[in-house]
Amino acid sequence: MATNLYDYAYELEHALRKSNEFIYLKQMYAAVENDQIAKSMFDAFRNVQMKLQQKQMEGLDITETEVMEAQEIANRVQSNEKVTRLMEAEQRMSTSINELNKIIMKPLDELYGFINR
Amino acid sequence: MATNLYDYAYELEHALRKSNEFIYLKQMYAAVENDQIAKSMFDAFRNVQMKLQQKQMEGLDITETEVMEAQEIANRVQSNEKVTRLMEAEQRMSTSINELNKIIMKPLDELYGFINR
Ligand SMILES: [Ca+2]
Ligand SMILES: [Ca+2]
Repeated sequence: MATNLYDYAYELEHALRKSNEFIYLKQMYAAVENDQIAKSMFDAFRNVQMKLQQKQMEGLDITETEVMEAQEIANRVQSNEKVTRLMEAEQRMSTSINELNKIIMKPLDELYGFINR
Repeated sequence: MATNLYDYAYELEHALRKSNEFIYLKQMYAAVENDQIAKSMFDAFRNVQMKLQQKQMEGLDITETEVMEAQEIANRVQSNEKVTRLMEAEQRMSTSINELNKIIMKPLDELYGFINR
């Protein structure tokens, strides 16, 4: 039965790889990768995001300077069409992944929901 | 294409629901639910786990008393066969879910791996 389960996962993986969302995301990544300015903006934005997430996870306070720095980079990034298209593509992919997860995890959600009533 | 993607997810959900791992997990949950002693041990163990996880997420220190309390409950729980079987079933299910996720997320892992080279 376990092998069968993995077969279905491989079929979903294949469908994901061929999906419009994923193909579009790859194209938008390539567009940013091949543009030095877009690439450095995107990297800077990602680094600030990761730094703030890391601090949050460690329960550390985020300073006013850091909030302002993040906002400044976010504003700059929004002026670059390639980067904003990539961020939209990532957002769309992430929404699809969340919906896929919700579908797949339904049996477990039901079981835990029943238990925690 | 998006509809198609969800079709594959629904097929995987269906397979998960019919899998040996999931059916066994449901049975082990029912066994604990129907045994007052096992149920209260399991609930106590889960509560302590959740409390410690919550503190970790908030970056708070876990006291020596809390570690000892958690260990004491873990020891007690290990003496109950129904609870240990349920915990093993959960562990097995969780391992399968992780492997399914690894398979499904491969396209995205490859894309991000390529980008972050
Ligand atoms: Ca198949
Ligand atoms: Ca189908």
